[in-house]
Amino acid sequence: MKEINIHLSPKDMPRQWYNLAADLPTPMLPPLGKDGKPITPEKLAPVFPMNLIDQEMSRERWIDIPEEVLDLLCHWRPVPLRRATGLEAYLKTPARIYYKDESISPAGSHKTNSAIPQAWYNKQFGIKRLVTETGAGQWGTALALACNMIGLECKVYMVRVSFDQKPMRKILMQIWGGHCVSSPSEYTHAGREILKKDPNTPGSLGIAISEAIEEAVSDPSGTTRYALGSVLNHVLLHQTIIGLEAKKQLEIAGEKGPDVVIGCAGGGSNFAGISFPFVADKIHGKKIEIIPVESASCPKMTRGEFAYDFGDTAEMTPLLPMNTLGHQFVPAPVHAGGLRYHGMAPLVSQAVVEGLLAPRACDQLNAYKSAMIWAKTEGMICAPETSHAIAATIDEAIKAREEGKEKVILFSYSGHGLLDLMGYDKYLTGQLEGYTLPDEELKASMEVLKKLPKAKIHKTGKW
Amino acid sequence: MKEINIHLSPKDMPRQWYNLAADLPTPMLPPLGKDGKPITPEKLAPVFPMNLIDQEMSRERWIDIPEEVLDLLCHWRPVPLRRATGLEAYLKTPARIYYKDESISPAGSHKTNSAIPQAWYNKQFGIKRLVTETGAGQWGTALALACNMIGLECKVYMVRVSFDQKPMRKILMQIWGGHCVSSPSEYTHAGREILKKDPNTPGSLGIAISEAIEEAVSDPSGTTRYALGSVLNHVLLHQTIIGLEAKKQLEIAGEKGPDVVIGCAGGGSNFAGISFPFVADKIHGKKIEIIPVESASCPKMTRGEFAYDFGDTAEMTPLLPMNTLGHQFVPAPVHAGGLRYHGMAPLVSQAVVEGLLAPRACDQLNAYKSAMIWAKTEGMICAPETSHAIAATIDEAIKAREEGKEKVILFSYSGHGLLDLMGYDKYLTGQLEGYTLPDEELKASMEVLKKLPKAKIHKTGKW
Repeated sequence: MKEINIHLSPKDMPRQWYNLAADLPTPMLPPLGKDGKPITPEKLAPVFPMNLIDQEMSRERWIDIPEEVLDLLCHWRPVPLRRATGLEAYLKTPARIYYKDESISPAGSHKTNSAIPQAWYNKQFGIKRLVTETGAGQWGTALALACNMIGLECKVYMVRVSFDQKPMRKILMQIWGGHCVSSPSEYTHAGREILKKDPNTPGSLGIAISEAIEEAVSDPSGTTRYALGSVLNHVLLHQTIIGLEAKKQLEIAGEKGPDVVIGCAGGGSNFAGISFPFVADKIHGKKIEIIPVESASCPKMTRGEFAYDFGDTAEMTPLLPMNTLGHQFVPAPVHAGGLRYHGMAPLVSQAVVEGLLAPRACDQLNAYKSAMIWAKTEGMICAPETSHAIAATIDEAIKAREEGKEKVILFSYSGHGLLDLMGYDKYLTGQLEGYTLPDEELKASMEVLKKLPKAKIHKTGKW
Repeated sequence: MKEINIHLSPKDMPRQWYNLAADLPTPMLPPLGKDGKPITPEKLAPVFPMNLIDQEMSRERWIDIPEEVLDLLCHWRPVPLRRATGLEAYLKTPARIYYKDESISPAGSHKTNSAIPQAWYNKQFGIKRLVTETGAGQWGTALALACNMIGLECKVYMVRVSFDQKPMRKILMQIWGGHCVSSPSEYTHAGREILKKDPNTPGSLGIAISEAIEEAVSDPSGTTRYALGSVLNHVLLHQTIIGLEAKKQLEIAGEKGPDVVIGCAGGGSNFAGISFPFVADKIHGKKIEIIPVESASCPKMTRGEFAYDFGDTAEMTPLLPMNTLGHQFVPAPVHAGGLRYHGMAPLVSQAVVEGLLAPRACDQLNAYKSAMIWAKTEGMICAPETSHAIAATIDEAIKAREEGKEKVILFSYSGHGLLDLMGYDKYLTGQLEGYTLPDEELKASMEVLKKLPKAKIHKTGKW
């Protein structure tokens, strides 16, 4: 019988997260305040608990995963590594395609890998309530689940247009006891001001972040904090459990390791999760091609700039050194909501600048075409974000066939698409657009960066 | 670390299905034609391929699972047996609760366990096209997936009210290349007649079955057949892989076996799947309580009669000996669409009559209350049907606590509820009704049975 699923025993779960900041050839640039000076941990204290701020700043290579966090994660982890034999046969490729199935968490995506530890560390620090924002809803559902498991209150500001158009994710959050509200809202000063100006605004991730941070920092009891689902170092750290598990499972499958590693990349957390342990191998001399795949509608790695920029539209966050399209950028309404963020995580961005990664962009039509091939050959319905990774996987598998080369391709199956079937319906009925960002829009959006501090690093230029 | 997931290696997958017909204390009554005489295999030949008719009639205890079917099933099987530690802790029960997670197939339920072999046997027999009906859509999606994997065309008549209210399952079928149409339709004589009388009919499972059978038997090329997702012996046979896997996994977990086995029961396929291997143990002397849980809106086992009855409203099927509410019965519109069938599989029904099973009914409100407890304690969103099994599991776990008895409870987690979140929304907003069938409606519906042949068996009366 074919071995499709490669399981890892819970006792072989990774006991430490991997921190790429320890191995990056160039030291990371610090986040800056509006005054242009590096942010101190104290300045972040009203926003995040100190134990997570320590993780954010850490340059240690390995960071222990608390036993209680492992106990919580092992409700669904280790997740299987699977061999995509159906896709291989369809493509007649000599490549062996493996994917890490992150869709089997109850919230349906990899986001739980950081939601659980974030909720746990907050609880340890005496926090009683977490506030966050969510666009399409993947992160909001993951945090609602985590807070329910750990015993924290959870409030989620959901971008109004998604709140209205995607009621299913809101119901999921409510089932787990999360309080999901439409943003902009009457709960915050920022929300009220925006509603006063434009009562019919569709909202934006930038506005929702502003509302969530405002609510977190203005709780007089000091027991509320903010939680972010991507971009920051500690979030990417938590996600490395994906790649660390995959590494062990590839060994079990008898593979020497991947030749190609692929992940879709919005803020960077999923991509970092599958790839960072292999980026480390590449830094130490192993030959691996590592491909973050972004949406052509939001191409910060392939067409953006490495610069200091704000994480949100309202300029409430520190300045982060990252590949960005400018924090005022409004992406086209692609179904892959998780890829509609103007910036890329600093850790991923520095790896791009160093030449360790080979980013590429995929447009929405090509992504859905790949999702359909996947559904027909593997039977599974992938999330709109995940389809971008599948598109690159298909390209690489075809390349292997054309070159007549055996290859091991590994990608992260970051989530399922069962709550996003309308995009498939639009594809099937010919109503879907590709959306590639026009040059003039890109140029206009990048203008904002000219007023901000430059991000300069001395690259080794080795890769 | 807690051992939550008990995995079975693909090489330890069951190689044979278990046929309860071989072990039932009383021989099974045959299906009858309208003339009151037992149906011959030849009469079924235009409807089903002969290899499946042979299975339907077989009294062999063990039937080999073809290697190719195993290869297809092992894309997601063996599915994990999981320990519900969160629920146990919440209930403070000494019971150890295990569940077989059938929700992880791409179609989201146990239905694929029979869809795959049915499609495979049809293909072997030279059939090119399968036609079926679906109510809520679980079976239709499973068959569309199976036909896509095996290379058959698939047409699904979906009850109009579901077709309109549940577009997501229709999209799923379309992704896998299935042709899903609203029933009644213009494709069949039966459909046209009904539309002529009442263009606004919401449709019914009975009508959809009539249309599907009509289309199957009237293909002049003879390469179209009909497929049914429950009730029949061969369907229940295929599902026994659930219980056979669970048995091996309980051994791995160090358990001597279950004291209680629970499954929700609509037509009987899920319940048979988890329970029949344990019903065999009970027949051979082991003490096990085995509980099929039906909807209080459709209580054929707890309040219906064991009688010969038609499988469909239009009287196109043979007469089957089964627990039934009368084939004209129209159940209340509960969300658990899979439990809205007037009859129970003959194999399950005979086991009920023999006293081997202890059926109970659960109303919709209690079912959703249990689903919410499950979501809060285990994190997972169950299907509306599955919530009935969870309700009984909670009752049994509380009983164990009150009696101070250690117990092993096993139930089938038959499917996820990610495509049925509207029922949860109604529960959360207080809009859900319980629906218990009123006596007078039950009585009126059973009238139709008086005109049909009686089903008499000599029971051993041993249990």
